Formats: sequence, structure tokens, C-alpha cells
Amino acid sequence: MQPQYQMGYDRAITVFSPDGRLYQVEYAREAVKRGTTAVGIKCSNGVVLIVDKRVSSRLLEPVSIEKIFKIDAHIGVASSGLVGDARSLVDRARVEAQINRVSFDEPIDVEVLAKKLCDHMQVYTQFGGARPYGTALLIAGISEDEARLFETDPSGTLLEYKATGIGTGRPAVMKVFEDEYREDLTTEDAVQLGLKALHAATEGKFDVNTVEIGIVSLEEKSFRKLERDEVKAFVDKYEQ
Amino acid sequence: MQPQYQMGYDRAITVFSPDGRLYQVEYAREAVKRGTTAVGIKCSNGVVLIVDKRVSSRLLEPVSIEKIFKIDAHIGVASSGLVGDARSLVDRARVEAQINRVSFDEPIDVEVLAKKLCDHMQVYTQFGGARPYGTALLIAGISEDEARLFETDPSGTLLEYKATGIGTGRPAVMKVFEDEYREDLTTEDAVQLGLKALHAATEGKFDVNTVEIGIVSLEEKSFRKLERDEVKAFVDKYEQ
Amino acid sequence: MQPQYQMGYDRAITVFSPDGRLYQVEYAREAVKRGTTAVGIKCSNGVVLIVDKRVSSRLLEPVSIEKIFKIDAHIGVASSGLVGDARSLVDRARVEAQINRVSFDEPIDVEVLAKKLCDHMQVYTQFGGARPYGTALLIAGISEDEARLFETDPSGTLLEYKATGIGTGRPAVMKVFEDEYREDLTTEDAVQLGLKALHAATEGKFDVNTVEIGIVSLEEKSFRKLERDEVKAFVDKYEQ
Amino acid sequence: MQPQYQMGYDRAITVFSPDGRLYQVEYAREAVKRGTTAVGIKCSNGVVLIVDKRVSSRLLEPVSIEKIFKIDAHIGVASSGLVGDARSLVDRARVEAQINRVSFDEPIDVEVLAKKLCDHMQVYTQFGGARPYGTALLIAGISEDEARLFETDPSGTLLEYKATGIGTGRPAVMKVFEDEYREDLTTEDAVQLGLKALHAATEGKFDVNTVEIGIVSLEEKSFRKLERDEVKAFVDKYEQ
Amino acid sequence: MQPQYQMGYDRAITVFSPDGRLYQVEYAREAVKRGTTAVGIKCSNGVVLIVDKRVSSRLLEPVSIEKIFKIDAHIGVASSGLVGDARSLVDRARVEAQINRVSFDEPIDVEVLAKKLCDHMQVYTQFGGARPYGTALLIAGISEDEARLFETDPSGTLLEYKATGIGTGRPAVMKVFEDEYREDLTTEDAVQLGLKALHAATEGKFDVNTVEIGIVSLEEKSFRKLERDEVKAFVDKYEQ
Amino acid sequence: MQPQYQMGYDRAITVFSPDGRLYQVEYAREAVKRGTTAVGIKCSNGVVLIVDKRVSSRLLEPVSIEKIFKIDAHIGVASSGLVGDARSLVDRARVEAQINRVSFDEPIDVEVLAKKLCDHMQVYTQFGGARPYGTALLIAGISEDEARLFETDPSGTLLEYKATGIGTGRPAVMKVFEDEYREDLTTEDAVQLGLKALHAATEGKFDVNTVEIGIVSLEEKSFRKLERDEVKAFVDKYEQ
Amino acid sequence: MQPQYQMGYDRAITVFSPDGRLYQVEYAREAVKRGTTAVGIKCSNGVVLIVDKRVSSRLLEPVSIEKIFKIDAHIGVASSGLVGDARSLVDRARVEAQINRVSFDEPIDVEVLAKKLCDHMQVYTQFGGARPYGTALLIAGISEDEARLFETDPSGTLLEYKATGIGTGRPAVMKVFEDEYREDLTTEDAVQLGLKALHAATEGKFDVNTVEIGIVSLEEKSFRKLERDEVKAFVDKYEQ
Repeated sequence: MQPQYQMGYDRAITVFSPDGRLYQVEYAREAVKRGTTAVGIKCSNGVVLIVDKRVSSRLLEPVSIEKIFKIDAHIGVASSGLVGDARSLVDRARVEAQINRVSFDEPIDVEVLAKKLCDHMQVYTQFGGARPYGTALLIAGISEDEARLFETDPSGTLLEYKATGIGTGRPAVMKVFEDEYREDLTTEDAVQLGLKALHAATEGKFDVNTVEIGIVSLEEKSFRKLERDEVKAFVDKYEQ
Repeated sequence: MQPQYQMGYDRAITVFSPDGRLYQVEYAREAVKRGTTAVGIKCSNGVVLIVDKRVSSRLLEPVSIEKIFKIDAHIGVASSGLVGDARSLVDRARVEAQINRVSFDEPIDVEVLAKKLCDHMQVYTQFGGARPYGTALLIAGISEDEARLFETDPSGTLLEYKATGIGTGRPAVMKVFEDEYREDLTTEDAVQLGLKALHAATEGKFDVNTVEIGIVSLEEKSFRKLERDEVKAFVDKYEQ
Repeated sequence: MQPQYQMGYDRAITVFSPDGRLYQVEYAREAVKRGTTAVGIKCSNGVVLIVDKRVSSRLLEPVSIEKIFKIDAHIGVASSGLVGDARSLVDRARVEAQINRVSFDEPIDVEVLAKKLCDHMQVYTQFGGARPYGTALLIAGISEDEARLFETDPSGTLLEYKATGIGTGRPAVMKVFEDEYREDLTTEDAVQLGLKALHAATEGKFDVNTVEIGIVSLEEKSFRKLERDEVKAFVDKYEQ
Repeated sequence: MQPQYQMGYDRAITVFSPDGRLYQVEYAREAVKRGTTAVGIKCSNGVVLIVDKRVSSRLLEPVSIEKIFKIDAHIGVASSGLVGDARSLVDRARVEAQINRVSFDEPIDVEVLAKKLCDHMQVYTQFGGARPYGTALLIAGISEDEARLFETDPSGTLLEYKATGIGTGRPAVMKVFEDEYREDLTTEDAVQLGLKALHAATEGKFDVNTVEIGIVSLEEKSFRKLERDEVKAFVDKYEQ
Repeated sequence: MQPQYQMGYDRAITVFSPDGRLYQVEYAREAVKRGTTAVGIKCSNGVVLIVDKRVSSRLLEPVSIEKIFKIDAHIGVASSGLVGDARSLVDRARVEAQINRVSFDEPIDVEVLAKKLCDHMQVYTQFGGARPYGTALLIAGISEDEARLFETDPSGTLLEYKATGIGTGRPAVMKVFEDEYREDLTTEDAVQLGLKALHAATEGKFDVNTVEIGIVSLEEKSFRKLERDEVKAFVDKYEQ
Repeated sequence: MQPQYQMGYDRAITVFSPDGRLYQVEYAREAVKRGTTAVGIKCSNGVVLIVDKRVSSRLLEPVSIEKIFKIDAHIGVASSGLVGDARSLVDRARVEAQINRVSFDEPIDVEVLAKKLCDHMQVYTQFGGARPYGTALLIAGISEDEARLFETDPSGTLLEYKATGIGTGRPAVMKVFEDEYREDLTTEDAVQLGLKALHAATEGKFDVNTVEIGIVSLEEKSFRKLERDEVKAFVDKYEQ
Repeated sequence: MQPQYQMGYDRAITVFSPDGRLYQVEYAREAVKRGTTAVGIKCSNGVVLIVDKRVSSRLLEPVSIEKIFKIDAHIGVASSGLVGDARSLVDRARVEAQINRVSFDEPIDVEVLAKKLCDHMQVYTQFGGARPYGTALLIAGISEDEARLFETDPSGTLLEYKATGIGTGRPAVMKVFEDEYREDLTTEDAVQLGLKALHAATEGKFDVNTVEIGIVSLEEKSFRKLERDEVKAFVDKYEQ
């Protein structure tokens, strides 16, 4: 990519380059690539989200680095990229979920929610006056007795995956999943596979303080973030 | 095209170049040319839409790559180009269709709907503050007992075709159609012709997972997307 | 015209160049010059509009390339230039005509309508936030028992002609008209003269599929687009 | 004037150059200098406006090239410069005149109207978002039993003249008037002097079709545009 | 001042240069320096305003070049710089004066009016979307039995002078006043001193047609513009 | 500071430079540094404000150069920098003081007023569409039986001083104060110290006409500007 | 970092660079790095905030340099960076706290308040028309019987720390804390540790006048700023 060639296109928001690309969106994707690694894995009885929080100092309260968010009883989200942007999208997701409960007296469908978020993100790629979101999300939840796992990116594209990763470690994560993912994994298997992928992505630099795990359970039809001791049990088991 | 010569015109949205072209619109067309290939074929008893979804990983749920959309009972759309933009246009199309049912108690005319979408797209080529849509659509439907097939592009131009293609494989597709299209094709023939065209466009890289088919049926006066086993039957037959 | 000299003026919308020209308007005129050719001819009993639709593929439905539009019972319009822009102006013209019927219970005067369209187009040459229209129109109609033929362009200039042409073939068309136009032509003569002009403009590349004809009839005080067989009759006669 | 020196100032609307000039206004004046020539002459019993319409083709209806406009019973205007801009100003003048009649039940004072138009034009030289008007006007009328003749330009400057000209032929016209104008001219004398001035400005290229004449009559306290045969009589007389 | 050094600052309205100057305001002052010369002189029994109208053609009605304006019974204003801008400020001043009469049932204080105008002008130096006014004003009037003489400039600065000048001849005028002004001048003396200053500023090119005089009289507590014969008497006397 | 290095940052309002500075604010401070010198000195029984008015011509009425303003009975302000900007801030301060009296029936607290002005000035450093204020203020007043002296600058920073100076002479003034200021000064001492500081700042070029003095008196709980003879007495005493 | 390479990205607000960074946000962080040093330390019975006020002149009233602000009875904030920006955020925080009391009749949760401030700051990094805040905050308070200490920065990121520092001395401060911080510190220990950190950051240049201390007490469930003699006692003790 020749820097001088781009100089006309990347300054103005929401403008096409001669080859039909939206540079601002591609640069926002770079912000995601610089983000912490998050993985999502569908399994036989739910979905697993695991995030590496990349805690850099013992003075930091790891619990304050929130990368997995509960959106509603049955939906959780993992984020990578700009932290403030993620929080803004999470707030929006929670509001959409509550509106659905108030309007229709039932939980929002995961796919409907994911599309609403993507539509919102697309608007920031087409209209002036604001930049695209510098964040990708993994959206996991229960929809009509089925576990679902969606991935969004700054362009507002929405894709459903069996297993996927976002953030700086995505290439390493996807390699592990392409090789080892199977649809009949139990939740426990999926957590171990996710930790293996994170291990590959972080060159082994993670421990109970830096790992955050969220699980969508088909049986309980709910999402919850694991407690520290539950995480510890999984990490200990992995390290054996 | 000399890059330094254009530099004044393509940055500002909705500005003419000295030779009377709207570069932003032409660049948006490039986004379409980079998109997946979609074909539409009118036949004696309806219209066929076929799309190559270009599934790149076994971890992706092919069903989540939606390129054919049902707009109303009698109208379907295939898209190519920016995914988020397509979803935005599809949402608009569905709303227009519902407004028509509510206001006039009858299904919207396909051509009326297509014009409304094109008018909307034209606005984004004339006014500042937003970029043109980076998407082309094939709009298929029933209108007064006739099958119709329209194609739009980022400029808001509307054309009706007997058979056409959009996206990266358009040149290959059009060559097949110019040579082999006949108006008396049955739906089955049309699907086979469409698969042949897609085969040419993708250098043979498609299978039941990557192909999506939608059919407008004159008899049933309706549009529906085929189920996976129906698609499989067509693809198997083609491969023989 | 030196490209580097212009570079400051053509980027900003609605700005004068040092020699008092509005480059954006002149560039919009280039868009018209790249458009298909349309001719209009006043004759003893009405006005004739003829357009070459430049159909490039046998797969295209020629009927979908609409270049002549009925605005009201007594007014028709032929366009050249950007297709989406033309449709936007046509929609506006139809609304103005209906408003007049509703407000005053009578058909709108052709000249009044033409001025309203030109005023609208002028606004886009003076105010920021949008580009000028890239379209010229021939507006034909009946006004107080008289046939009228107006031509507009992107600057919002309005002129009345006895016979005129717009689009890529304008120079060739005007040469034919300067030499052969007479005010006592019948409608039939006028159609033949128009076809001759189009023939000159298109180097003979037209047939029944690519020609669209609209006629304003003084007797019937109405405008109508000819049916395919009527067009065929005229084209056949011309070719003899 | 060095082109590269100006490059910073003429792009942004309503910005001063280092020497205290508003380039956009000066460039708008160039648009007027490229316009058709119009003259105004006060005489003992009224004001005469004469315009050369510069008809370029026998196919054009000269009557459609309107350069002299009746604003109210007692006021007429001649324009030079951008045609669409002139029409916009004329519309505004007519509305102002009608508002005055409705509000005060009397005809608007010519000077009041002229100032209102100039105030309007000045706004376009000070505020962003629009360009200045590319038009000059000669405003002739009756005000308290006196004939008045005003000239405006794109800056919103207002001057009253005994005799003046605008447009491409202004230098030639002013030379004739400086030499030959007398205040005791009759209307007929004034028309002949105006035709002589136009003759000088157009190198003799005018005839009954290209000349438009409007006369403010002190006796009748009214403005009217001459009919074709009246114009013919004056032109014939001049040519003798 | 190096032109290339400034190029970044003078384009954007209301922006400081590195040395803390507002170039657009300084350039607007250049517009004033290019304007006609106006002088104001306080004397023992009032204030005198004199303007050189710089009439360039015998065809121009000198009376239409208005450079001295009556604002209210007790206030007059002389202007230099952009004519349209001056008229806009004069209109505003008149409205402010009338509002004061309506609201408080008394004439507006001269200083209050001058400050209101300056506040208005300052806004145009701080906010975007419009350029500063290219006009300076001399504001003369009666305030609590005292004669006052204020000068404003495009920055909205307000200063009170005993005698001052604006426009192209200011340096010549100020030299005459510095040398010869005395506070005990009668009105007649003041007019003669003002004519002498104008004479110096215009190199003697003025006569009764080009000079406009306004006088604030302490006794009559009023402002009035002199009639042509009064001006003539003063000019004749001066020329002796 | 390299001029070419800055060129990207100082043009756009409210933008950070790579080293975290707001150039527009720093340039506005330059406008203050070019302003006249003002000093403020807290003393045992109040606060003294003294300003050098820098009167450049004997024709100017020194009283019209107002640099010290009474805001309310107990608050006075001295300004340096752009005159129009200062007047705008003074107007705002007066309105705030009146609002406080109307709302709470008591005089506004000096610190509260100073913060309100600073908040207002900060907004102009963060939002687009306007430039920062080019003015610094010394705000002196009584607050709960205590004398206060605040200094603001274009960034909206607020600091309280025992003695300080703004404008072109600030370095010279501060040097005098650092050396000689004592908290037990009487008002008279403070005026003499202030005059000494001004003398240093202006190289001795001041006299009774160019000096303006305002005094906040703790006993009288009020602010007033000294009359000319009072100023004369102080200046005479200083000059001895 | 190559200055010429950045030139396209840092001018426009809220635009991504090719490597996915928001330069304006990074430059705003530079403004924080140039700010005074502030530290926050959680201890066994509360939180301690200490700020170095960097008083540069004996004429300045140190008390007017406010860097620690009480937000509500149970929350205090320390700031570094642009002073005006900090005051704007503090005002906002106080309003949010009061709204919570009025709406829910209870004190606002510290984390909720911190998130609201961060959401507000994030908006200034995504939307045009304003720059990001050039300020970092340490937010200390009581939340459900727990002491909390949050740090924000211009991007709107929110982190909770055991001990942290902002401003120019952050690297020196963090080194002290990494080495010596223990969770079982008493408030007194924490103040001494904070002074040690400040001492390292300021190379020992602080005394009772330049140090400001605020303490959140778990027992009293309240925040208060220490009086001067309390600060003196701590500083004296430290210096021993």
C-alpha cells in the first residue's frame, strides 16, 4: 500500500477509494486487530466466550477490565478493539434487549439483536460527522432452543460462526479451531479448546487473573460469567 | 486513468469531474465488482435468483451469509457488494412493501418498489453528508401476473433484464447468458443455466453450501428460498 | 483548459472561477453530453419527442429503459444524462402537475411547469450541500391551444425551441434541423425528420427496439407514448 | 494577477483576500461581463430598457429568451449574467412588490424595491453555504411621479444612473452614452440612442428578433414590454 | 509579510495566526482602506461629517451614492468600505434606534447604539459561517446635551475621537487634523477644516457633486444632511 | 517552533497538536501578549486595578478607551487583548451578575462569576464553529468580606493572585511584583506599586490621560473607577 | 513517528489512521502527560488522593489551583491535564451525582458515575464538531461499603487501580507503587507512600503549599479535602 496514493481517501469519512474500499472502515478494523484476543465456541449444549484481558500491572484491579458483558438473561457479548466504543455498543445492546421485553414481553431474539447492532454500526460507515466503531463483537445467546454465535466488525457485517476469534490473536486462534474444532464438544471441552487457542494467541501468557469466561447454557437457557474460582478450575485443568 | 488527475474530484462527495462523471459513484461500483456473484434469470414460469456465497472457512455457518432476501410474499432480492449496505436497503424494501399493504391493502408492484429503492439510492449520489450505497441488487417478483427482474446499481439506475449478473463474476456470467439464454426456459432449465454461469464465474468452486437459490413462481405467485436439500438436488444434477 | 489551473475551483460546489463560470455546472453539462440522444420537434399539429435508447444487450428489456415520460395528460418529457437524476426531476414534475390540478382544478401550464423545474435546478447551482442535476430535459405540451417545446439544462436555463436535441448526438441533430426543419411539418413528417436526425446522430444504429416516440397532439390536447407497433410502422417507413 | 497567489482565497466563499477584496464577488462580476448587453436610459418622460437577446439559431423561439421582466404595473427589470439567477431575483422582486400591495395597499417604491433586492444579494456575499448571484439588474420604474433607473451588481451595490449598460457590451455602451446622452431626450430619442449603443456593443448584429424593449411611461405611470411590431418599427427606423 | 507563510491562516474564518492576529479582520480593514474617504469633526456646537463620494461618471446620479445616513433624529453615520455591508449595518442601526423609542419612549443614546453595532460586528469575527464586515463607520450624535463622535472598524473596536477620518484618505486627513484641529471650532470652521482634509486626501478632486455633508447640531439636538445648495456654499467658500 | 511543522494543526479549530497543545489557544494568548498592560494588586483593604490605555493620538478621547469595567457594585474587571472580545465577556459578566441578584436576591460571589466566565471561555476551546476568546481578564471583587483577585486567559484557566499583570508588559510587571509586593500594602501603596510596575512595562510612557484606575474597597464593599483628578493625584505623587 | 506521514490523519477530528489509531485521542493523552502529577492509593480503610500543584510564583494564591474536587459527600476526584476541561468534567460529575440523589433518593454509585463520565468522554472521540477532552481523572469513592479508585483518560477508557498516578510524573509514581504498594496500608501509610511517589515525580520540589490531599474514609463513608495544617502535618512527617 503506497502511503501517498491513499492520501486523498482516508481523510474524509465515508468516502470510497478508486478500488471501491472504505478506508476508514479498514482502518477501524486495524483498531480491532490491535485489541485483546477473544474467542467464541459453539458446543453441543451452549456457547463459550473466553477473553484474554492482558493485565499489565499488579496495581490494576483485573475485574475492572471488562471484556465480556451480559446483555440480557440469555445473551452475552465479548469485545475487542477500542474499549470506549465497545461500552457504547454494549449499552445500546442492553437498551434494545430491554425495549424488546417491554414491547413484546419476551426476550429478544439473538439474531435480531445482532442485526440491530450491525445496522447501527453500518450507519457510521455511510454518514458523515462521526467515525466508524473501532470494535468487533462476539454475540452469544439462546434463540428458540438453539445456541447461536455471531461476529460483527466495524463495517456492520454479520456472520455466524461455529468457532471464531477476534483481536490481535485471531490468526493463531483460527488455526487451532480449523484443526481441532468439532461440533460435538461439551462445554468443558469447548473451554479447554478456547484456552488452548488463547494460549497459542498469547504465547502462553495468561493466568486466572487475565482470563474471563462467559457461558451460554442451552439447558438453563441463560448466560453467565464464571466466578473467579470457576475460571481458576478451568485454567488449572488446562495447565495440567 | 491517471491517479494524480483525479485527486481533486473523488474526495468531495457528490461532485462532478470535468468529463461529467461522479467518481464516488464509479468507485461504489468498484465495491460491487469486488462482491460475490449473483445471477437472475427470467423463465417461462417465473424468475430464478442464484448466488455464490463464497464461504471461506468450515467454521462459518453458511446459512448466516445471506445474499438472497425475501422482501414480501411475491418479491425476492439478491445482493452484491457491501454487506451492511445491502442489509440497509433490504430493510428499507421490506418497510416499503409493508407500507403498501397497510395503505392500499394489496401487495406492492415490483417495479414501484424497485423505483422507490432507486430513488433512495440516487439521493445519496446528489446530496452531501453521506456516501453512495456500495451495493447492487437484483429484484425479482410478480407484478400483475408477470414475472419481472430488475437490476439496480449505486447510481440509482434501474434496468429490467431477461437474465443478468452482478458482482465479481458478471463478465463471465453475461457471456454464458448472451450465448445460451432463451425465453422459453423452464424454472429447472433456468437454475441449470444459472449454475453454469456461476460455475464459469467461480472457476467451478461452488457446492451445496455456497449456493443459495430463490425462485419466483408465476403459478404460486410467490417467492421462496430453496431448502438445502432442494439446492443439493439442483447442484447434484448440474454436476452430472 | 489546463487541468492544474482549474484545481481550485471545481472541487467546491457552487463557486465561481476567475472568469465567472460555474465549473460544476459545466461539468454537469458534460454528463448530459455523454447521455443518449433525444430530439423534440414542433409541428403544425403538435410536438414530437423521439429518443434513442441505446440498448446494448439482447438480455435487456428495452421497455425498461425509459427516456420519455408522461407528466400529465397534456405534457411529456424526454431526458438525457444521469438516469437517476432524470427520474427525480420527472417525479417532481408529476407532483407539481398534480398540485396544480388539486389547487386550481385545471391542468398546469407547460411554461409554468418548465419554469418551476428550472427554478428547482437553479437552486442546486447556488447552494452548498448538493451537486447540480446532471440531466437535460425536453418538455413538450399543450398550453392554451398551442404546442410548446422547452429545453432545460443543469444550470436551470430555460429556452423554447422549434426543434432541438440533447445528449451525445446534439451536434448532428441540430445540423439536420437547421437544414431541413420547416414549421408546416405534419406530425408524420416531424417523426420522419426526427428519425433522420437520430440516424445521423447514431450513425444509423437504431431499430424499433431502441427508439421511443412520444407525441403531443393539438387536436386531442394530449400526450401519449406510441405503442411498439406504431413505432415499428414509423421506423419501417423511415428505412424505406 | 498571479493565479497561484490567489489560490487560497477564491475557493472559500465569503472570504477576504489580503488586499481586502472578495474574489467570489469579483468572479461573479465576470459572469455578468460574459452576459448579453442590456441598456437603460432615463428620458424626459420615462425610462427605456433595451436588451440584445443574442439569438444563435433559427430554431430557437426568440420570445423564450426573456431578458426584460415586468415586476409590477410600474416597474420593469432588465438582466444580464446567469439566466437562472436572474429568474430567481425576478421572482423575488415580484413577491416583494405583491407583499407591498397587500400590506400597504399601494405600489412599492422603486428605490425601496431596489434596496430590498440589493440587501438580499449582499447576504450572499457575507454568509457561507451559497455563492453570490451571478447577475446584474437594471431596475426602471415610477416613484412619486419621477422616473428612476437603478443598477445592481453581484456585491449588492446600488447606483442610480441617467443612462447605463450591463453585460458584455458595457464599455461600448457607456462610451456612446458619455458622448451623446442628454436629459431632454424623448422616449423615441432614447430608444434610438439605446439602439445605437447596442449596435456599437454587438458590432451591428441585431434585428427585430434579437431586440427586446421595455418602456416606463411617466404619463401612464406604467411599464410595458413592446410588442414585436413596435420593436420592428423602432429597429426599422434606426436602420434607415 | 511573506505570502506563503500566511497561507494557512487566512482561509479559515475566525482563526488566529501564530502571532495572535485575526487575518480575516485585518483583510477586512484593507477593504476599508480601499473605500472612499469620510471625515468627522467635533466642534463647539455639534459634529460635522463630510464624505467624498468619488463620482466617476456624469451619467451617475450623485445623489444615489449615499455615504452619509440619518439613523434617527439625533444620529447620523458616515461609512467607508463595502457599500452593501454599510447598508446592512445602517439598516440594523435604524432598527435598534426604533426599538429603543418603542421600548423606552426616548431616543437611543449614541454610545449605546455604537456599542450595539460593535457587538454585532464582533460576532462576525468570532463565529464561523460568515465573514467580518468590510466597513468602517463614523457615528455622530447627541447624547445628554453632548456631541459625540465614534469610529468603528471591522473588528468591532469602538473609539471616540475629536476628529478622525476613515477610508483611503485617512493618513492625509489625520495629518491635517493633528496639525490644525482645535476644540473651539464653530460648525462652519469645522466644515472648512473637513474640506481641507478631504482636499488633501483626494488631491483636490472634489466639487459640489462629490461632497456630502451631515451636521449634528447641539442647539437643535438633531442631525441633518445638507441640501445641495448648502453644500455648494461651503465648497465655494472653501475654494476661495 | 518550525512553521512548516505546525501547518497541519493550527488551521482547524479545537484540534490537538502531536505534543498535546491547542495551538489556537496558544495563538489567542499571543493576542493577549500584544494587548495593553493591566495590573491587579491585592492590598490590606481591597484590590487595585491599573491599566495603561496606550493613547496614540491627541485626537482620541482617552475616556473612550475603556479597559476597566464595573461589573456589579462589588466587582470590577480589567482587560487586555482583543477589545471587541473583552466587551463581549464584560457584557456576559454583567448579565450573570444581574441574574444572580434577580434569582437569589444577593450579589454574585466573585469566584462564582469568575468560574462562569472561564467555563464559557473553555467551551470556545473545545467546540468547532468559533475561535477562542483573544482576551485575558483581571477580576477583582469582594466575596464574604474578603478581597479577591482572579486572572483568566483564553484557555479558560482560572488562577487567584496576590498581584499580577496581563498584556504586553506582563514580564516587566511580574518582576516588579516578585521583588516588591507585600501583603500589608495599603490601597495607596498598592496604587504606587502598580504605577511603578506600569512605568517599567511602558518604559515610562504614561500620564494622567493614559492611566485608568479602579479600586475595590473592603470597607465600602464596593468597586469604583477613579475620577480623572483622583488619577491625577496618584500619578503626580508617583512622578515625584 | 514521521511527521509528514501523519499529516493526513491528525487534522480531522475522530478519524482513524491506517494503523487503527485515533491520533487526536493520543495527542489529548499528551496534554495529560504535560499535566501536574496526581496519585491515588487504595488502603485498608479508604482511598487517598494527592496532587502536586506546581505553584510557580509566590504571587499566586495556591488555594486557587484546585486539582482535587469534591463531587458528592462520598466521592472525590483528582485531575491532570487541561484545567478548563477538568472543570467542565467536574461540573458534569456533580450534576450527575445530584440527579441521582433527586431521582433515586440515594448517593450515586462510584462506578456508575465513572462510567457516565467515560461515556461522555467517548462521545468526543467519535463525533465531529468538538475535540476530545485533554484531561485524565482519578475518581475515588465509597460504593456499597467498599473503597473504589478509578482512572479515566481522554479515550473514555475506565480502569480500576489499587494505586496509580496521572500526569507528567506517572512513570516515576508507578515505579514507586509497583515496588512498595501493599493492600494493608493504613490511610496514614498511604499518604506517606503517595508523598514518596510525588517526591520521586517532582524531584523533591514540593512543600505544604503545593500539595493537596483528599481522603475517602470507609468508616465515615465520606470524602474530604484536608485542611492546610493537616497537610502540613503529613508533609512535615514525610520530610523527617
